[in-house]
Amino acid sequence: MNPPVSETTELQGPVVIIGAGLIGASVGCALTAAGIDVRLSDRNPAHAQVAAGRGAGSVDPVDPDEVAVVVAAVPPAALVGVIMAALAQYPNAYVTDVGSVKHRILIRLREQGADLSRYVGSHPMAGSHLSGPISANEDLFADRTWIVAPHEGSTPGAVDTVTALARTCRARVVRMGTADHDRAVAEVSHLPQVVSSVLASGLTGVAPAHLAIAGQGLRDTTRIAGSDPGLWQQILLGNREEVAQEVRRFRARLDDMLEGLEAGYVEPQLAAGVAGTLAIPGKHGGRHEEYARFIVQIPDEQGALARLFVDADRAGVSIEDISIEHDPVKQVGWLSLAVVPEGAERLEKTMTEAGWEIQPPD
Amino acid sequence: MNPPVSETTELQGPVVIIGAGLIGASVGCALTAAGIDVRLSDRNPAHAQVAAGRGAGSVDPVDPDEVAVVVAAVPPAALVGVIMAALAQYPNAYVTDVGSVKHRILIRLREQGADLSRYVGSHPMAGSHLSGPISANEDLFADRTWIVAPHEGSTPGAVDTVTALARTCRARVVRMGTADHDRAVAEVSHLPQVVSSVLASGLTGVAPAHLAIAGQGLRDTTRIAGSDPGLWQQILLGNREEVAQEVRRFRARLDDMLEGLEAGYVEPQLAAGVAGTLAIPGKHGGRHEEYARFIVQIPDEQGALARLFVDADRAGVSIEDISIEHDPVKQVGWLSLAVVPEGAERLEKTMTEAGWEIQPPD
Repeated sequence: MNPPVSETTELQGPVVIIGAGLIGASVGCALTAAGIDVRLSDRNPAHAQVAAGRGAGSVDPVDPDEVAVVVAAVPPAALVGVIMAALAQYPNAYVTDVGSVKHRILIRLREQGADLSRYVGSHPMAGSHLSGPISANEDLFADRTWIVAPHEGSTPGAVDTVTALARTCRARVVRMGTADHDRAVAEVSHLPQVVSSVLASGLTGVAPAHLAIAGQGLRDTTRIAGSDPGLWQQILLGNREEVAQEVRRFRARLDDMLEGLEAGYVEPQLAAGVAGTLAIPGKHGGRHEEYARFIVQIPDEQGALARLFVDADRAGVSIEDISIEHDPVKQVGWLSLAVVPEGAERLEKTMTEAGWEIQPPD
Repeated sequence: MNPPVSETTELQGPVVIIGAGLIGASVGCALTAAGIDVRLSDRNPAHAQVAAGRGAGSVDPVDPDEVAVVVAAVPPAALVGVIMAALAQYPNAYVTDVGSVKHRILIRLREQGADLSRYVGSHPMAGSHLSGPISANEDLFADRTWIVAPHEGSTPGAVDTVTALARTCRARVVRMGTADHDRAVAEVSHLPQVVSSVLASGLTGVAPAHLAIAGQGLRDTTRIAGSDPGLWQQILLGNREEVAQEVRRFRARLDDMLEGLEAGYVEPQLAAGVAGTLAIPGKHGGRHEEYARFIVQIPDEQGALARLFVDADRAGVSIEDISIEHDPVKQVGWLSLAVVPEGAERLEKTMTEAGWEIQPPD
């Protein structure tokens, strides 16, 4: 499913980027920083100018025959037209796109009857709450996953070149077929978004006095429900068959849980949830480890965190994870520290001696 | 709904605690530390002895007529019997329990035909992944919510005394009727647990290559699904009518989302989710604020966090939230810092000058 990724192909310019939004302009910045000749275009010429001003490339014209790569970085609705036009206009270029859905686009391109040997879709899994060329950043893709999605008709040269493009943006390349890609993002990204949004949407009907006793669990499960509705509507609808299938599967499992509640036996359903969390790769690609957690009170005052970590450091115990919980009433926060179980006692002793207030976890 | 809580009643002993598990023994430790005379009992005398050894009180006998308060800290299935026996055995004592469901217990107590004027249920919202008297801790309830649930027949003296008990354990007391309590925990705690477990339970069927591209959203939404299935079965079944109702409401909203997917329009459902997240009280009881976030690379080496916070402190910007994201491939972590937007630029400048690698957020 993930054949070895070629390390050898070096990206050559000129690269034409069509669509100078956050993603397109950031690709431009990353390639320009790597010494690649980038030419920017946008339906709105001012966007291309802003992107050029951010170091994303130039807006000078280029000989179409000389263009080596074209990146279509336009909204989903415009993608097919832009890819088709690019294949025609730049006869010697490999063409890719950066959309978050890959298989449906491929099907629609095939319906156009074009030769798609020079096209390979891709999906950089990076973004920002910011948008537009003004927020462009050459580091946007650094160490992020960038999926390259070959298809039956794509040439090895096209696949290697799009891979080299993603690598030049310092992304971590994962190869995946187009249908596989759309299934994967439905499973690990789109379904969690739908579930979180549906869970959160019920909270407007909950009494404030009830919400006041909410803990970290509710906050964690609804955090991504705060995402931009307009953007997520496009993402979900672009992959609607896969998403709807995942939602229906989720609903079947929910019905099973409801039956369990009525029958007075839900431990198997809850245990299946535990097994699911253990299937998610943890730190450094491994499985979740069991860490000891304890909680230190941090006064809401300047420098408290710095002092805390200096003291914690004296224990010589590696801190594997941290999170802050804010007390809704007292003007203090609680810092939760996760360490390997062997180091927990030493850290607790060191922190207590240094005068920090330790509280057992909940 | 939350009448003013009396500040005046002082807790008097002796207090009898029935059930020397984590919660009962921790109540004993907190009361003993406050100078209250505590007597411990447990069906298993060894548990009471261990709790006494942890400073939770004594196992010496006490004159039943002199006992001022009884705390029933036994598993849900045993609660009604223990409360009834305590009301009979200690004729001058107020009686409370610490179970996570309040209304169904009250109904069952009423069915026994007893005088419940001396009984007021309560629910300390604290716990631990640890259990048993060996883990008892006088700080377990400090700054945690402890719900006191009066009923029609309870006397003001009973309510004030149970309130004083919770305060003596340094908890933050919230008063709520029994039915109100069970609804509230179903809404903000039990439904999120069910949803998270059902979401996570699907992951065992997801290909490892697909799970490898999972981001923080999946981890956040499934974190509480890792909770103990046996304990959560007891909690959910103890409140099954309320939980089932919340699950059915959730399912109706999920069906609405599914219809939206099929109809090609889900923005209203997604926007309702955003509104829901904004209804959750944020830091210090207020609403969520919009913080600027940026991400600093932390090398996986001793002392990195301490150095990082010392440097960050120089910017003089208050850090509102922090979290760690681990890169699944490179041996580094990323620290996400949230600060007020006005301070973001200064912090970024300070950190960049100090040589830290900053990355834009996703």
